[in-house]
Amino acid sequence: MMPPGGAGPRGEQIAALAVIRHSALTDPAMDDLLARAASQADGLDAWQAANLREMRRDHAHAAALPSDLVEALSTATSNCETIWRTARLDANFAAVLPALTEVLSLTCRKGEALSSAFGVGLYDALLDAFEPDGRSAEIDPVFDAYAAFLPDFLDDVLARQKSLPEPELPPGPFPIERQRTLVHHMAETVGLDFESARLDESLHPFSAGIPEDSRITTRYDEADFTQALMGVLHETGHAMYERGRPAAWRYQPVGDARGMTIHESQSLLVEMQVCRSAEFMAWAAPVIRDAFDGAGPAWGSENLARLAIRVDPGFIRVDADEVTYPAHVILRYRLERAMLHGDLALPELPGAWNDGLRDLLGVTPPDDRLGCLQDIHWYDGAWGYFPTYTLGAMAAAQIFDAAKKADPSIAPSLGQGDFGPLMAWLRPNIHAKGSFLSTSAILQQATGQALNAAAFQNHLRARYLPA
Amino acid sequence: MMPPGGAGPRGEQIAALAVIRHSALTDPAMDDLLARAASQADGLDAWQAANLREMRRDHAHAAALPSDLVEALSTATSNCETIWRTARLDANFAAVLPALTEVLSLTCRKGEALSSAFGVGLYDALLDAFEPDGRSAEIDPVFDAYAAFLPDFLDDVLARQKSLPEPELPPGPFPIERQRTLVHHMAETVGLDFESARLDESLHPFSAGIPEDSRITTRYDEADFTQALMGVLHETGHAMYERGRPAAWRYQPVGDARGMTIHESQSLLVEMQVCRSAEFMAWAAPVIRDAFDGAGPAWGSENLARLAIRVDPGFIRVDADEVTYPAHVILRYRLERAMLHGDLALPELPGAWNDGLRDLLGVTPPDDRLGCLQDIHWYDGAWGYFPTYTLGAMAAAQIFDAAKKADPSIAPSLGQGDFGPLMAWLRPNIHAKGSFLSTSAILQQATGQALNAAAFQNHLRARYLPA
Repeated sequence: MMPPGGAGPRGEQIAALAVIRHSALTDPAMDDLLARAASQADGLDAWQAANLREMRRDHAHAAALPSDLVEALSTATSNCETIWRTARLDANFAAVLPALTEVLSLTCRKGEALSSAFGVGLYDALLDAFEPDGRSAEIDPVFDAYAAFLPDFLDDVLARQKSLPEPELPPGPFPIERQRTLVHHMAETVGLDFESARLDESLHPFSAGIPEDSRITTRYDEADFTQALMGVLHETGHAMYERGRPAAWRYQPVGDARGMTIHESQSLLVEMQVCRSAEFMAWAAPVIRDAFDGAGPAWGSENLARLAIRVDPGFIRVDADEVTYPAHVILRYRLERAMLHGDLALPELPGAWNDGLRDLLGVTPPDDRLGCLQDIHWYDGAWGYFPTYTLGAMAAAQIFDAAKKADPSIAPSLGQGDFGPLMAWLRPNIHAKGSFLSTSAILQQATGQALNAAAFQNHLRARYLPA
Repeated sequence: MMPPGGAGPRGEQIAALAVIRHSALTDPAMDDLLARAASQADGLDAWQAANLREMRRDHAHAAALPSDLVEALSTATSNCETIWRTARLDANFAAVLPALTEVLSLTCRKGEALSSAFGVGLYDALLDAFEPDGRSAEIDPVFDAYAAFLPDFLDDVLARQKSLPEPELPPGPFPIERQRTLVHHMAETVGLDFESARLDESLHPFSAGIPEDSRITTRYDEADFTQALMGVLHETGHAMYERGRPAAWRYQPVGDARGMTIHESQSLLVEMQVCRSAEFMAWAAPVIRDAFDGAGPAWGSENLARLAIRVDPGFIRVDADEVTYPAHVILRYRLERAMLHGDLALPELPGAWNDGLRDLLGVTPPDDRLGCLQDIHWYDGAWGYFPTYTLGAMAAAQIFDAAKKADPSIAPSLGQGDFGPLMAWLRPNIHAKGSFLSTSAILQQATGQALNAAAFQNHLRARYLPA
């Protein structure tokens, strides 16, 4: 919504608030206050104790970093991100290499500082900002299992896909006003309440805001309605999670979202598990067709369902289907760890990227724009973020399985466009947990299992290689 | 833009920021810092010295009020404003009387606290928040002169208006999309740069934001385009002033807008002095006509100009023409001083209001919705605000006169829709002064005179009773 001229001052305002927040968190009195609270922990109930634990985590993150490092990182990432925008368009990795070298070097310093404060490894210390208590020792086997599973599975999926009729996009164009009406209706169908939410447009779709004022965005393409539709369903899953955070702990750390794995599980549960399923599409296809006054077999639920789950190994993560998406993440996860641990020199990144993608998916990017320059994360200083996408996809499958077993009415309701029973289960079991439990404990309580790849692989087998 | 559910949390966020701001301003170290700066004032240049003076003013306002009073006022005005919304619709003054009594009592406490801190009278102490260094001793003669001037003048204006053909609104409806295009174009004509501004819709039009990101709003009526048009021109005047504040002193008190009198002078200069003039309308009428594909004599510049300056004594301030508007303000100014000084008991307000309006304009509201319940100000705790509207109208006339004398190209340029020369004069003489000078000094420097009613009365005579 903001006019371009506001970007600079908005940045300054946010920086000013960050400084105020950081000085409040690192006020000399804070150590004493936290120590006193800890010494009286016997008197706390379970939620209060969890709140104190999360206060200590926030404080530890803030206190571990010297302010000159925070400032240097802020400057370096802002500089690197600006250079990256042009370098990406020019497919010119060399142009951003010096700035990225500086970001990596400062990120290593940050990781070391956090590592010694938390007593965990450098990578896990960085991961903690996005996935509290996340550990690469737990991620490795899950990702390795998927990397081992993928090649044969992908071959089988592509072979089967080839044997079926090619799904086709219904004939367009799809007027944007009608897309807008459709995606608003679909977001409401999932449960989004527009008394407490807005749906706007932006180049890069996102979900933001606060529980009482969710802001989600999408982008519209007159030639293809599926991007806006699936994008909004994805962001609505994020918004529903935020909306369901424990209201009694508003503004308290324990009331916050747990982390990116659970967050992504909620968006992918709605988009991937539910809305791309044949069962849901049987209900949705006529709704979609009527939104565009469509007619003909391309609007049938079978075609639209096949369209929604077409598998196509490609170069770009954000365009990837759910079968190949984890490969993009696993590649980034392995590369960022190697770079952080000094096992991969930055000038070698493009080659390592291309080799890695070829090994995982059998495709090789023709240039770095479609390769190691495609994502903003590293250039913007977000090291340790990537794994949460795929951990979220796995958690989504696991949670959806558990939900359907716990309440047998969930699956048939979704087949009639009714998200009520699903949300009624997710609310207490996932959303309202806030940061009361760790991600592992939330999953263990809700699904009876630690996070693992089995449910996700079963889901993929059932969807892509049905008996 | 905000969904309704966001209002509560937004209020909490703003309150949290206000608390942070207040504690920063009243930090025990602040007294020492200000005293040390004052002791080294010899080393300051004129802008630095003015900045220190404004810092002291901000500090004095914050430090003068005990925090329990600030909190009590915040609660009381929030409560009173909520009750007022219903009471106004029901024309039921009795319903809001207890809440307003509480607001007035706390406002008197606030006025007394500020009064003893600043060494000025209670009313002037409250006025200072909206019009720094404003003094009722200077306002009284100006307002009294206008009140004496008005009755005979108004009779003459109405008699002359009756002798001329009645102006007519061109035939509508006026599609909102076309109004939107027209008012955007007109705002750009004045000088608004939409790279650093937005124009949106709201029930109550306003101007807000920061210089690099101006937000102005209007409302559209399909049956009448003149409200949106003139409203946007008014808000654009506010935005141009903000945009022209001294960039070198951004985020410093001396870089802020001077006060509501200068602010209102800039909106009224654009709307009333320029855009409702026959000269400007000669240029604008064809632009307006073409915006609606209009044809016929009602779209002529003479008719549109007469329409823009129709005088019609009524009950509602915000709907008033520029001749009768000051009467509404003078009434409120006299009444609020009487109430603050204990010379008018609140239960007597409706009667005093109706008597006062009859004396000034010869009309009597049929109920309190059209009388003392119409404006939010008192119910929301804004006592001492009203006079700035009319002081601004007077300053606008004085400033426009001086500008036209200083640069003879200004008037003919405006007759061709070119605001360049006018803005080129206003920028250094008014906008870029920020809070460097007092309102009086800005006017004295820019116009060679103290604020007075003469230019405004001359303007009215020339426009409404031309020889």
